[in-house]
Amino acid sequence: MRAVDIIAKKRDKQELTAQEIEWFIQGFTRGEIPDYQVAAWAMAVVLNGMTNEETVALTLAMARSGEMLDLSLVAPTAVDKHSTGGVGDKTTLVVAPLVAACGLPVGKISGRGLGFSGGTLDKLESIRGFRANLTREQFLRQLAEVGVVVCGQTADLAPADGKLYALRDVTGTVRSIPLIASSIMSKKIAAGARAIVLDVKVGLGAFMKTLAEAEELAKLMVEIARQTERKAVAYLSDMNQPLGVAVGNALELREAIDTLQNRGPRDFEEHCLEIASRMLVIGGQSSSMEAARLVVEQALRNGAAWQKFLAWIEAQGGDLEVVLDPQKLPRSEIQREICAPVSGYVHRIDAEKVGTAAVLLGAGRAKKGDAVDYGVGIEVHHKVGEVVHKSDPLFTVHANTEADIQKVGDLLSEAVVIREEPAEPPVHFYGVIE
Amino acid sequence: MRAVDIIAKKRDKQELTAQEIEWFIQGFTRGEIPDYQVAAWAMAVVLNGMTNEETVALTLAMARSGEMLDLSLVAPTAVDKHSTGGVGDKTTLVVAPLVAACGLPVGKISGRGLGFSGGTLDKLESIRGFRANLTREQFLRQLAEVGVVVCGQTADLAPADGKLYALRDVTGTVRSIPLIASSIMSKKIAAGARAIVLDVKVGLGAFMKTLAEAEELAKLMVEIARQTERKAVAYLSDMNQPLGVAVGNALELREAIDTLQNRGPRDFEEHCLEIASRMLVIGGQSSSMEAARLVVEQALRNGAAWQKFLAWIEAQGGDLEVVLDPQKLPRSEIQREICAPVSGYVHRIDAEKVGTAAVLLGAGRAKKGDAVDYGVGIEVHHKVGEVVHKSDPLFTVHANTEADIQKVGDLLSEAVVIREEPAEPPVHFYGVIE
Repeated sequence: MRAVDIIAKKRDKQELTAQEIEWFIQGFTRGEIPDYQVAAWAMAVVLNGMTNEETVALTLAMARSGEMLDLSLVAPTAVDKHSTGGVGDKTTLVVAPLVAACGLPVGKISGRGLGFSGGTLDKLESIRGFRANLTREQFLRQLAEVGVVVCGQTADLAPADGKLYALRDVTGTVRSIPLIASSIMSKKIAAGARAIVLDVKVGLGAFMKTLAEAEELAKLMVEIARQTERKAVAYLSDMNQPLGVAVGNALELREAIDTLQNRGPRDFEEHCLEIASRMLVIGGQSSSMEAARLVVEQALRNGAAWQKFLAWIEAQGGDLEVVLDPQKLPRSEIQREICAPVSGYVHRIDAEKVGTAAVLLGAGRAKKGDAVDYGVGIEVHHKVGEVVHKSDPLFTVHANTEADIQKVGDLLSEAVVIREEPAEPPVHFYGVIE
Repeated sequence: MRAVDIIAKKRDKQELTAQEIEWFIQGFTRGEIPDYQVAAWAMAVVLNGMTNEETVALTLAMARSGEMLDLSLVAPTAVDKHSTGGVGDKTTLVVAPLVAACGLPVGKISGRGLGFSGGTLDKLESIRGFRANLTREQFLRQLAEVGVVVCGQTADLAPADGKLYALRDVTGTVRSIPLIASSIMSKKIAAGARAIVLDVKVGLGAFMKTLAEAEELAKLMVEIARQTERKAVAYLSDMNQPLGVAVGNALELREAIDTLQNRGPRDFEEHCLEIASRMLVIGGQSSSMEAARLVVEQALRNGAAWQKFLAWIEAQGGDLEVVLDPQKLPRSEIQREICAPVSGYVHRIDAEKVGTAAVLLGAGRAKKGDAVDYGVGIEVHHKVGEVVHKSDPLFTVHANTEADIQKVGDLLSEAVVIREEPAEPPVHFYGVIE
């Protein structure tokens, strides 16, 4: 086989065989096929697409390119969740201990934030002492002993995906539904997941801007799971406005703590209850969504989830003092409110603009490797559909300098649309794909 | 500007500005934009195309990426020719001294063979002592003093094109009419040409297999010339069967010598007379094709072209002894005839198969840097439309081993189609684009 022939075949809209894809990806992983050939191939995939069979083959080739975690000795059905990324999405912080508290172990490999959407590890690292880097052995031991573990990539999971993503990022080849689907699913498969709840965000603050493309991605990921003998259910959930109130690392961690203590924002709590229930069902722990919901609500209401959260954070070296007294979490120097210029109904709170403002304050990364500031961020005090009165606070900006406050002021003002006529609260879940 | 945005723009079928193309190509030339970004961009160009304006900008950016030869002090209108490559195409060997003998200096940068089509420099190097590598100063001096010079790239002409072509070759991005047109024209412009006769080959033994794509390429190159204030005329010429009789380095050189001595094959002589006449016209030396034809025929018939050839070869160090007695040119160990299996009319002599057979014998290169064998090759004794009788020789194979003769026997037999019904001789020039 020659790499140039595989590229030409895809350029000419022909279907690649599983053998060709396997050979190409393993050659790339070992450094035998150079970046420039893979970049040309990726552009051909972006423009000519891939069949479901090709996408499954690519997913498996990337999953097999490194170690494959086997969680079967620790968890009968290893269950995982994945969000395609949004603004204010701190769901894992609540759902992981919540599901674990219901008796189903959750061992999750997570990522850091990039661009306008935050990363679970950054939020966890706002807890003094929290260790996001675990060895494979530490990961497995904690999963067995505590029932919940969330960390960064242990060693060598799906290295082909890491390499390919880095290349796509700089070659204009990120926007491809088959490439996005196989990237997500290869990591999940390599990390040992047997059942996966997918949360595909759609809207202004999501990578997928239209329901049609979100649905296409969701269906493709569910199909990949089916063809690789995993279970997957995908939610299509709204990301036009931020999820919950808090956007920013320590602010989001604090909101997760509030939610685990039954005083979180209603939209975010409801999101967590739905995702957690679904995890129990596809993990084989509950027989129906109704049954799962009862179990999950109980674990949240009776403090079992909160206790599991504490055990989890402690196991990864996090300082419980700051978790038990969130005033001790990193805080910004200045807090400043931005108020409604007029009275009326909230028609829009643009999640991407809010996310971008948080990055400008220092909460996120413009590029990989940038440091993040845990204390800064934005609280969003209203939801689309609500009534606001002139001078009501719309946002609280947590920043370190007056200049930073200035920097995001216009962007946040532009993010909000208030009109006299009433606005419908948006649907939160547009659909579920099984 | 960011390279990734330029790639994304082309991916999204938007037109790039001349500034963007210039920045991208100069960054690539200086090694600041890595191969993988250029490979992704090239694939986007292959699949989404380029406008004429983009193609002109790319041509100029590549031409300006290195030195630009200025021939104006030596030749009032520097005239050049370019063939897109065919089997048995030794036209430059005749046309360069022929046009020079008519008083119009010809300074030409030429290439080596790759794949089934041969290269002018390889043919010239079958002359003992011939120097294909000249400095810029040697090139200009010889052009002034002798009136004709043909050599490999002097130093640094259009280095962006060289770099881009090498990358396209291994990334499946060769097949793009805008990229092919800008590659050819950038080198011609950098080499100082003000007027160019283009010979776009079409057919089995050409890179362009259909008249439609050959015409598209020809029109685009003529348009690039117009927009860059050069003159160009393009011929669409048949390359279903080889041009002339000889295929292989020393064999083709010998055929060029025969032609300069008025005993060459008729089809090849006619091809040379037409191209040379057109060069005189667009070079401003003749006022019409009819006038040019008279001058050119005279220079061929009276030996002036042959004398100019000798002066040229001597100036570049070639041993005149072997030119004056072509028996002394490199010869293969074995010559073997392949004869007609039946009587009838020749319907096809597949130029690509003949060219591939010559490469298998060692006359060409499978990949860059391979050595070539000057003595081997194939003589093709018939043209499409001719009558052959059973056992008439169709080919003479010049090889070094019996095994090599075996190796090409089937391929050459397959190259020929003989049928009972008469065959029309093919048109040689399908059209001229001005």
